[in-house]
Amino acid sequence: MENKQRLVKLGLIQTYCEDQPSNNIERVLALVKEASSQGAQVICLQELFNTPYFCREYDEAHFNLAQSLDSQFLDQFASLAKELNVVLVIPFFEKRAQGVYHNSAVVIDVDGERKAVYRKLHIPDDPGFYEKYYFTPGDEESGFQVVDTAYGKIGVLICWDQWFPEAARITALKGAEIIFYPTAIGMLKGESRKQKKEFSDAWQIIQRSHAIANGCYVAAVNRVGKEKQLKFWGKSFVAGPFGQIIEEAGEKEEILIAECDLSRIEAQRREWPFLRDRRIDLYDGITKRILD
Amino acid sequence: MENKQRLVKLGLIQTYCEDQPSNNIERVLALVKEASSQGAQVICLQELFNTPYFCREYDEAHFNLAQSLDSQFLDQFASLAKELNVVLVIPFFEKRAQGVYHNSAVVIDVDGERKAVYRKLHIPDDPGFYEKYYFTPGDEESGFQVVDTAYGKIGVLICWDQWFPEAARITALKGAEIIFYPTAIGMLKGESRKQKKEFSDAWQIIQRSHAIANGCYVAAVNRVGKEKQLKFWGKSFVAGPFGQIIEEAGEKEEILIAECDLSRIEAQRREWPFLRDRRIDLYDGITKRILD
Repeated sequence: MENKQRLVKLGLIQTYCEDQPSNNIERVLALVKEASSQGAQVICLQELFNTPYFCREYDEAHFNLAQSLDSQFLDQFASLAKELNVVLVIPFFEKRAQGVYHNSAVVIDVDGERKAVYRKLHIPDDPGFYEKYYFTPGDEESGFQVVDTAYGKIGVLICWDQWFPEAARITALKGAEIIFYPTAIGMLKGESRKQKKEFSDAWQIIQRSHAIANGCYVAAVNRVGKEKQLKFWGKSFVAGPFGQIIEEAGEKEEILIAECDLSRIEAQRREWPFLRDRRIDLYDGITKRILD
Repeated sequence: MENKQRLVKLGLIQTYCEDQPSNNIERVLALVKEASSQGAQVICLQELFNTPYFCREYDEAHFNLAQSLDSQFLDQFASLAKELNVVLVIPFFEKRAQGVYHNSAVVIDVDGERKAVYRKLHIPDDPGFYEKYYFTPGDEESGFQVVDTAYGKIGVLICWDQWFPEAARITALKGAEIIFYPTAIGMLKGESRKQKKEFSDAWQIIQRSHAIANGCYVAAVNRVGKEKQLKFWGKSFVAGPFGQIIEEAGEKEEILIAECDLSRIEAQRREWPFLRDRRIDLYDGITKRILD
């Protein structure tokens, strides 16, 4: 079967967050329109796009920021997806049941229909990022989903998931041509420039490695701006199926547009056939905590 | 338990290969002495160190280059390890039985004893790298081994293995503090400078990503020189447990010495606790070829 060019334009919306969710929603609806007017066909927002990164502190009141899956703002985005003929990835703080909250992302196709709800599987917890307090980890049902959208097969993983090669691998084996990583990562006050370089290098390298290992596209969308003791570093990027940086944003608000040719996935996997040679007979150990 | 500094000096021997194995052996014995005199305590040679990269062509006569595990040259290296008080990683073309050949590496400890025979698990096969013709893939018994040497716990994987996050993960879960990747990678005649950059970038990124994902050291040892249509690019390197480049070689013969502090592994894993958060309940899919 001949491998024909399949172009798709991604739009990554890298922005800051205000305290008031409705302000963020209004602003981001406008940014989605702007991205679409620049040609974007698959548009991804950053992690917890409509709220500040409240996990920077312990505060029970922050649970009030969570929204259910039938919230009105999701309908607004669904209508917009249909109107603009775009696919949308919308990450937000989800209230699933009384006392059960998730760090989630919905995928809306060009018909305005919701095709998946992904719930973050790997939950961090360290100074300034107290996520285990707020988020119930995603379960099998909502994990590792791939949606066959109008513009290609996409998988969504969220932030901390990006450090786990297993997550990218399973999503790719399920057919993802593009893996999106909505993210909220930044520096704590007092961390040095050297640390910033080390952290952001590692953050980019691990995600480029998922593109390489799996021969697929990877798109990381990070927030910007200062929120109390945290400063988010932006630098959203799209990597090609051998880890090449295709487009990269700066550290300020930006709509990053990246044109991808999905036929490069097949071409890459023919030239460097890693998926052919996996030793699946010997990988059982992956499901163990430690092999001691 | 307090996390105390544990310094170890690695020596990576990046060299060219002559046609005559005995010449390579003599030269490399001298290079091991030189590395030791520069302080190296764990010394790793490149893949198939005593032969040209014969897999560049199909030729039955090349099977004559294989050596059994009781070959005399291994005794020479064992004596030298004991004499110099160093750990040696020695990758070579192994004849295991009539018609069964492996791309192997032995680990010799400071007492001159052989502690492991690793047999390459992932075997490439593409133009100029016809390895599936020569090498039987390693089996469970010889796969993913970690040796508790006098200078730290080391794992060995070989070349093509470097593209598979599963291999690094399992080796790290078994306790490896340093993963060595003896390698023979280069460019084919006619490939462009742009391709060279793309290939060598991907090669470095995927290996740095293993250091990041697993919070361990990674040391890649590549050959140099031209062999018929192939030109090996050298660029051996050592990465720290957040993927930082600690030392990196050029494209000519070189003994790369890198000082590592193994206490940085624990420090790194405390600061970025990826191993804490793996979703081992959801990784079964890793043992499947494709999740279709």
